[in-house]
Amino acid sequence: MRVRVSIIGASGYGGGELVRILAGHPEVEIVHLAADSHAGQPMDVLFPNLKAFTERMTESPDIPRIASDSDVVFLALPNGLAMDLAPPILESGARVIDLGADFRFKKAEVYERWYKTPHRSLHYLEEAVYGLPELNRAAIRGARLVANPGCYPTAALIALLPILRHPAASRRGIIVDAKSGVSGAGRGISLGTHFSEVNENVKPYNVAAHRHTPEIIQELESALGEPVSLTFTPHLIPMTRGILVTAYIPLREDVTGEDLTGAYEEAYAGEPFVRVLSEELPQTKATLGSNFCDVAVRVDRDAGMAIAMAALDNLVKGASGQAVQNMNLMLGFPEDLGLRWPGLYP
Amino acid sequence: MRVRVSIIGASGYGGGELVRILAGHPEVEIVHLAADSHAGQPMDVLFPNLKAFTERMTESPDIPRIASDSDVVFLALPNGLAMDLAPPILESGARVIDLGADFRFKKAEVYERWYKTPHRSLHYLEEAVYGLPELNRAAIRGARLVANPGCYPTAALIALLPILRHPAASRRGIIVDAKSGVSGAGRGISLGTHFSEVNENVKPYNVAAHRHTPEIIQELESALGEPVSLTFTPHLIPMTRGILVTAYIPLREDVTGEDLTGAYEEAYAGEPFVRVLSEELPQTKATLGSNFCDVAVRVDRDAGMAIAMAALDNLVKGASGQAVQNMNLMLGFPEDLGLRWPGLYP
Amino acid sequence: MRVRVSIIGASGYGGGELVRILAGHPEVEIVHLAADSHAGQPMDVLFPNLKAFTERMTESPDIPRIASDSDVVFLALPNGLAMDLAPPILESGARVIDLGADFRFKKAEVYERWYKTPHRSLHYLEEAVYGLPELNRAAIRGARLVANPGCYPTAALIALLPILRHPAASRRGIIVDAKSGVSGAGRGISLGTHFSEVNENVKPYNVAAHRHTPEIIQELESALGEPVSLTFTPHLIPMTRGILVTAYIPLREDVTGEDLTGAYEEAYAGEPFVRVLSEELPQTKATLGSNFCDVAVRVDRDAGMAIAMAALDNLVKGASGQAVQNMNLMLGFPEDLGLRWPGLYP
Amino acid sequence: MRVRVSIIGASGYGGGELVRILAGHPEVEIVHLAADSHAGQPMDVLFPNLKAFTERMTESPDIPRIASDSDVVFLALPNGLAMDLAPPILESGARVIDLGADFRFKKAEVYERWYKTPHRSLHYLEEAVYGLPELNRAAIRGARLVANPGCYPTAALIALLPILRHPAASRRGIIVDAKSGVSGAGRGISLGTHFSEVNENVKPYNVAAHRHTPEIIQELESALGEPVSLTFTPHLIPMTRGILVTAYIPLREDVTGEDLTGAYEEAYAGEPFVRVLSEELPQTKATLGSNFCDVAVRVDRDAGMAIAMAALDNLVKGASGQAVQNMNLMLGFPEDLGLRWPGLYP
Repeated sequence: MRVRVSIIGASGYGGGELVRILAGHPEVEIVHLAADSHAGQPMDVLFPNLKAFTERMTESPDIPRIASDSDVVFLALPNGLAMDLAPPILESGARVIDLGADFRFKKAEVYERWYKTPHRSLHYLEEAVYGLPELNRAAIRGARLVANPGCYPTAALIALLPILRHPAASRRGIIVDAKSGVSGAGRGISLGTHFSEVNENVKPYNVAAHRHTPEIIQELESALGEPVSLTFTPHLIPMTRGILVTAYIPLREDVTGEDLTGAYEEAYAGEPFVRVLSEELPQTKATLGSNFCDVAVRVDRDAGMAIAMAALDNLVKGASGQAVQNMNLMLGFPEDLGLRWPGLYP
Repeated sequence: MRVRVSIIGASGYGGGELVRILAGHPEVEIVHLAADSHAGQPMDVLFPNLKAFTERMTESPDIPRIASDSDVVFLALPNGLAMDLAPPILESGARVIDLGADFRFKKAEVYERWYKTPHRSLHYLEEAVYGLPELNRAAIRGARLVANPGCYPTAALIALLPILRHPAASRRGIIVDAKSGVSGAGRGISLGTHFSEVNENVKPYNVAAHRHTPEIIQELESALGEPVSLTFTPHLIPMTRGILVTAYIPLREDVTGEDLTGAYEEAYAGEPFVRVLSEELPQTKATLGSNFCDVAVRVDRDAGMAIAMAALDNLVKGASGQAVQNMNLMLGFPEDLGLRWPGLYP
Repeated sequence: MRVRVSIIGASGYGGGELVRILAGHPEVEIVHLAADSHAGQPMDVLFPNLKAFTERMTESPDIPRIASDSDVVFLALPNGLAMDLAPPILESGARVIDLGADFRFKKAEVYERWYKTPHRSLHYLEEAVYGLPELNRAAIRGARLVANPGCYPTAALIALLPILRHPAASRRGIIVDAKSGVSGAGRGISLGTHFSEVNENVKPYNVAAHRHTPEIIQELESALGEPVSLTFTPHLIPMTRGILVTAYIPLREDVTGEDLTGAYEEAYAGEPFVRVLSEELPQTKATLGSNFCDVAVRVDRDAGMAIAMAALDNLVKGASGQAVQNMNLMLGFPEDLGLRWPGLYP
Repeated sequence: MRVRVSIIGASGYGGGELVRILAGHPEVEIVHLAADSHAGQPMDVLFPNLKAFTERMTESPDIPRIASDSDVVFLALPNGLAMDLAPPILESGARVIDLGADFRFKKAEVYERWYKTPHRSLHYLEEAVYGLPELNRAAIRGARLVANPGCYPTAALIALLPILRHPAASRRGIIVDAKSGVSGAGRGISLGTHFSEVNENVKPYNVAAHRHTPEIIQELESALGEPVSLTFTPHLIPMTRGILVTAYIPLREDVTGEDLTGAYEEAYAGEPFVRVLSEELPQTKATLGSNFCDVAVRVDRDAGMAIAMAALDNLVKGASGQAVQNMNLMLGFPEDLGLRWPGLYP
């Protein structure tokens, strides 16, 4: 019998991408697609790529019913909603994977400082597991509640973890300069995502103020057991999907790019979805539509600086693909089940 | 035992897309990837999306060896080469699917007029089956040599066949106005496909002179048993993948859009890769990366004109996906084996 | 003393483009920039390109004050507003150039059928001059109220007028297939203009139902003195600026492309902003940011069909540039004053 | 009498942009357009935006004739050619503005290390003035030979100079992360600028190895009189024009963003083409087609890091516009003559 899966927030890009991915998963069936503002609309009108794959309508979210009908519930919602919805679902026995930020922070005060709202579910905040398999695989396997990482943190952490564990690297003065396609801003309309304003344009935003900064720092400090200082700057670029992170790490001692590449290859040996490049450099197009994250590292010896780069598809490895990877781990399936296919190129 | 498949012309977009698609096909294994000018390069450097899927190098095309090692050979080559390569492969017992134009024409003189070169394989030209499953499924099933249709003809024929079979439609004065992404021009570099010349630009090309015109007319006349007059104008638009065809068909008698939509639904009932839209209109993004072709029809009653539209991904249903669909038919596999997944949206 | 100019609707793309263009006009000064919903915002924040060119704030539209302070008032508003605002401005002695549809139709019932609202200014509807200089130059010179043409009609009329005046051309069964950048949809946000939905996508819209259809037909019939039947299909393509029209005209007798090109060259000899191409084909990038419209014509002799093409920048020749061209005519300035510069390429 | 101007390298983007800009300059006339590989082609076919502005053909470069006919010669050539062409032109009495790298370096060995070719014009290398008006205005005024800065160095230097002159800033460990449109790579075709490879893609290139690195460092060290360590990483993004530089400067002492913004406003007060933003952030679209460079600065106090940003159009302020600005200075014209117009938005 197939695992029964529901999605709350099915009309957004995270929700649509979950349905796209799960359409190819051999062990699940979708039982509810809930979407508050678009309830009653056919999913294949909201997402015309899904025509011939589902005739399901989106429904108003009836939490008790979804909870009792489902083994796993994905929450793909604006921040601040999941902390109210997850508890009753968990208490009815279903597992929850939250694609938003509500359960990502160890400390409620960090969440409250950056998201400007009190946290109303401290118990589950403590229980939640941060769902980056490359960092937390064992804990995810036993989890009931997984906080799926943000798109930028996924790329930044995969780029930074191996080098920050290397003795040559400083943990102070780190720069994460990120470039993102527009789908990362979601499906909600705004002047900032209006085609004519974004096309043929590149712009930084939320400089020294993006909410993914504390998430990256929390996970680095937790992994390294040491304070980290880091500046994160996101940029919006005129494409739909893809994140490229270029990270700069001051070096405390001389090291070659080859040495560091070796450290990445070792760190990610056996990882199903991280590809370490040595000759080539990451580019988002190599990951388009797939669950892969490509990484590489170089050294600027004149300046004593390492440059670590990572590319991924923000809607797949940066959101819904990683959520399915977490689901596979939680349910004991092979980690790459239904997720292993190459991206589109070109 | 898996079917042994080889690709000649693996370094172009058609070849790369074949490898991407076949990576998910459960019944084939790739035995040779031949690419003349890039021989010796790793396939996953030529196509970085394929990293972790193949460690194979491209080879110089050794035709006898490829022929004897393979059950099926895909030719993804510039026009004019396949007519020399296909015969020895066929004679060694392998099947051939040619993605180029060499075997698409019933009459050598039409090929020679439009492609400006004598045809050197008249025997196989006669034997070849035009590989549009929606038109020729039975013949494809028994074929040794399939001429995979051009990208524009695939969209145009799927858009036009049901309405031209309808008594209300004229077969004279038909217009096919097509808009294509740039990957249709292949991977060969030129000023006309240089990013800065194409981006933020739309332009017609080969007006009243594109080689896909006689291909469309041949298949329409063959299907209808009647002469057709048709003007085809392709346009290049600033996107990578996708073709949209907007076709105009003068009406000889009054008919509603609903009636015509009914005719399309009937014509394509049971087709695994044609989706008839009634409320919505085709858009290329709904097919991105998938093997679907979306169609719709409308009527301008004031002007006595029907408008038939079709959208597809030129590298999938317009090339490599359709080639695999043909392979499935030729080998007796389910027609959609390894081909049924939704496109990316957005 | 400079001519005093005001703009009502300054926060939209038409308004911003007027300010950009007028910044280089030697004979005007801007006295009011009115923008209802953005009143009180600095114009150079709404349009960051204008920084260093204006420190003016947008104001709430105070019609009597604008009317008394201005020699010319541009209305760049959603349809349905100008018919109430233009009369008091005209009555106070200022000239009005309306970039919307309110004064474009000769017959109120056509407006009412297509714009779904009663016309409340029949007197001025009758007085208004349709502001296509290539068609109506003399009348524009003496006008108080000019209805600036729609972006699609400008391109379609410039493409069609010379051939439809040619004896070889039919006036029945004409097709106008148009491709537009997204800025033509204005600055108002919607899912249909959300970057991620439009990028890497091409789609038809308002098939057999676009409001520019009756405008094109009205002007053709008025110019030709004969009924015309025409089907117009607009498409949205992933670029910001530019319209390309590809028009198909059935031929009643044999004629060559060279003959027809000669007719275009004759028709547009002396036109300051129409460039007739003979060897090359129109492309929108050649007109980017400029007031030019490029045209060419070809013949498909096999099919008995002429193909006329026109390209322009929808915000310049398709809107604000043409409005300034009309202002120049109305005020007796050289027609190209402040308007003659080449577009950006690439 | 107008100043006589010639362009060698007229068929590339730098050359075409010079003609576009000079079309609006009231004090110059173009006397020769030389273009080796495209000699004999009409300039308005090579650049269709120029139709109606020039009927001139490109010529083979006849250096003596160009030198004797011209007051100013612009060289817009691949690196390594200008060092042979400039000397005879200078010796015949004309001024030279070189848009390439040949005369940018103070030390021949730096040029030779990065450009892999011996320098053959040491005398003029010493004489040449680095043409960044914001840094070198006085020296440019008296110069015969100006080395026009690279596109990235223009943006990087305008972003960095004010903060590196501030006592709070470190001059070590500086990061310059740059994002460029594709026209910066020129008009020469390559797989790396093939539309389908670049569109929907972002990628770093020449990591820790780009030739603009020593140019930036040379000018900073010369301006500051102190060594600088700096890492520069360029990225290619899917747009035609525009560069955004995001620079990171470690802070030695606490300082606010407002303080630093004040330093920028002071540094650039009176500059005709630098706009300092305080509330807003730079974005390339605000500069599209114009000669402006927009800058802003922010502070990440948690990390002790300043972030300085600059945006410009790489073909205007980053190349041909700046070259005309230098010409104006060299000839004693107002610095902004023929250069002051707003960019396109959107």
